Amino acid sequence: MGTAQSWLESANAAHCDFPIQNLPYGIFSNAANPSPRIGVAIGDQILDLSVLAASGLLKIPGAEPAVFSQPTLNGFIGLGEQAWTAARARIAELLDSGCATLRDDAALRARALSSQADATMHLPVHIPGYTDFYSSKEHATNVGAMLRDPNNALLPNWKEIPIGYNGRASSVVVSGTPVLRPNGQIKLPDQERPIFSACRKLDFELETGFIIGQPSKLGSPIACENAESHIFGMVLLNDWSARDLQAWEYVPLGPFNAKTFATTISPWVVTMAALEPFRVQQPAQSPEPLSYLRHAGKHAFDIQLEVYLKPEKSAEATRLSHTNFRYMYWSMAQQLAHHTVSGCNTNVGDLMGSGTISGPTRDSLGSLLELTWNGKTPLPLADGQTRSFIEDGDELILKGWCQGDGYRVGFGNCTGKVLPAIAAA
Amino acid sequence: MGTAQSWLESANAAHCDFPIQNLPYGIFSNAANPSPRIGVAIGDQILDLSVLAASGLLKIPGAEPAVFSQPTLNGFIGLGEQAWTAARARIAELLDSGCATLRDDAALRARALSSQADATMHLPVHIPGYTDFYSSKEHATNVGAMLRDPNNALLPNWKEIPIGYNGRASSVVVSGTPVLRPNGQIKLPDQERPIFSACRKLDFELETGFIIGQPSKLGSPIACENAESHIFGMVLLNDWSARDLQAWEYVPLGPFNAKTFATTISPWVVTMAALEPFRVQQPAQSPEPLSYLRHAGKHAFDIQLEVYLKPEKSAEATRLSHTNFRYMYWSMAQQLAHHTVSGCNTNVGDLMGSGTISGPTRDSLGSLLELTWNGKTPLPLADGQTRSFIEDGDELILKGWCQGDGYRVGFGNCTGKVLPAIAAA
Repeated sequence: MGTAQSWLESANAAHCDFPIQNLPYGIFSNAANPSPRIGVAIGDQILDLSVLAASGLLKIPGAEPAVFSQPTLNGFIGLGEQAWTAARARIAELLDSGCATLRDDAALRARALSSQADATMHLPVHIPGYTDFYSSKEHATNVGAMLRDPNNALLPNWKEIPIGYNGRASSVVVSGTPVLRPNGQIKLPDQERPIFSACRKLDFELETGFIIGQPSKLGSPIACENAESHIFGMVLLNDWSARDLQAWEYVPLGPFNAKTFATTISPWVVTMAALEPFRVQQPAQSPEPLSYLRHAGKHAFDIQLEVYLKPEKSAEATRLSHTNFRYMYWSMAQQLAHHTVSGCNTNVGDLMGSGTISGPTRDSLGSLLELTWNGKTPLPLADGQTRSFIEDGDELILKGWCQGDGYRVGFGNCTGKVLPAIAAA
Repeated sequence: MGTAQSWLESANAAHCDFPIQNLPYGIFSNAANPSPRIGVAIGDQILDLSVLAASGLLKIPGAEPAVFSQPTLNGFIGLGEQAWTAARARIAELLDSGCATLRDDAALRARALSSQADATMHLPVHIPGYTDFYSSKEHATNVGAMLRDPNNALLPNWKEIPIGYNGRASSVVVSGTPVLRPNGQIKLPDQERPIFSACRKLDFELETGFIIGQPSKLGSPIACENAESHIFGMVLLNDWSARDLQAWEYVPLGPFNAKTFATTISPWVVTMAALEPFRVQQPAQSPEPLSYLRHAGKHAFDIQLEVYLKPEKSAEATRLSHTNFRYMYWSMAQQLAHHTVSGCNTNVGDLMGSGTISGPTRDSLGSLLELTWNGKTPLPLADGQTRSFIEDGDELILKGWCQGDGYRVGFGNCTGKVLPAIAAA
């Protein structure tokens, strides 16, 4: 499918995130139809699956047409891998340059295609559970060196366990949702007691997330070798973090208010089928993991990632970081095997964050905490300003894509603009 | 209402958990009707609200009769406080000894009442989010002294923050659900690397939980003074804990696999209206909390709590602990104010655990970790056995009640029997 082309010209541009090789799913609405429903991104357009299904053009075994009119992807995802495969094949067929069905039917095209620019994107999945991992060795090493002990930066459990913790699903929002700077407790070194204040060290974390497609039952661990079959697709994820709140609250039970005010994900879920050509070997693991965490073959994915910051009154966004998902020490399969090894169940729509993705170089770090070394070395921006942490009005923009031969499989943007904290009561 | 009596004699017994003063809500099914639906516990019976509503005897402003036929309480709870008040008043009226409507209609009684002994209880609420706090000073002090530093047992943040963390909602189960002993990584002191093993230090944690009734929006903190109006009711909660998994995994992001294999709650949700007469002053807080955590008046509740352990082949359960919810340092209102102060939103059905409830004495501790001081001093059982931690086949039984003048407002039992770990792959 690497050389396939669509009759929709915008899908064939070299830097387009949404060629016919991608076909990510999202939930959209627009002026023509304010009901959130399932669409597929193609070029600069959205293909409305509810229209295709109602027209009898998208017959998927086991799927009622109404599943494509639902306001989340969960119903469709819950149909299982055979339905995913059938839908992807049929949608690719309809968009292929050689297929006349949509191409030559202007009236149908007018109903089934609408502009991404005019659409409102919604949270693509209802998220029953959100887990965030901590699987970049570079990130864990940087944070450990900075905040704990430079001589023992990596904690003893880190190379044995894909460390993860439960996040707050309720505050996961879709790209474009403004993010309020959180208030909370901050412990200043020169004061005996904490103060109540707006966060002074607001940060982003560059992450990806994966969405559970095939659920698992309580007491039924998912074997590592089989874990990828439980994954429907991936999103970009910004794990907004209030570093000063976190430093004071996190011992001994982990981050809480420092993370629960917002987590932003991209609106398009890129399927594992679309990512398949970009499978690569993950970094060597030493020591070899315990047997329940072992899997043969390639389980990393070559996904280029970027972070941009755009100040409110600036015309220009500055690239803060450029890294790659392939650097991750623990694979998604290992994360999922570990998550369920004690018997924990998973549900369709569960979101699993990768943890901050930092690369080995200074310009490939996935957080301001690392990029500015806890604010000590502010970053210069294109417009002459500098940043230690995020300021009010700043917009953070995550981008991600796999580079194919003449095409990209991209995620679109994952953005959020930071608004001032609400005044304390 | 303290002296009210029901025409149902079993509701008037002095030690009955479910007198007319209680009226807790749950989800039940039985042989006569296998559809899970809403019931109210009264004496040794269940009052079927779906039957009352269908018969036109339970007209609640804003409520369709079908809300009482739903398989979770969320729809009813989401109607809001006025509906809760109206339903409680009407149900109390129908059950009152002076009311003939049900009392004198044998055919209606036969349809509307069924035996608790013959019913299957289901998880009472769909739980969108589960948070567990750590609000007993005695428990936090014991754990800190045992596992960290006896001279600085309470961490510096503990008296400033109602410490909490996100739990795993998917594995919250209703009382009676068997609990599989979890597998996972254990780090033995004499070995360099962890082993994969069934948990060897399986524990219970005696907790209560509260259920969110009035939701809150992202970016809209709940004021402490107003927080109780967001709470629908309370349950008993057993926060099963794998101490050996936890010790190895919890730094730096908190407990994960050690807790996500199961959390058991009682089937009956006791409303705040029923608990109102048992409101008491909480323990003095020093230092005075930051202003967002302050509330005047009484915000603790006098709820007696017990834990029993019954070995598989033993006829007798041994009481391990007897304590009281009123000992908790942080109130539920303070927990909720803190949870949302950074802007985190809450949903109807969210479950918030109290954290282990330990009292000041040796026989009032809320976990085996504390009762046996990490296994060092095993507890004698009534049948001559001893326990350091939970063994396969052991059943744990939590009980809780408020003692009124001649009646109890009780929670019923919250039980779970531990089954052997599944064989590792």
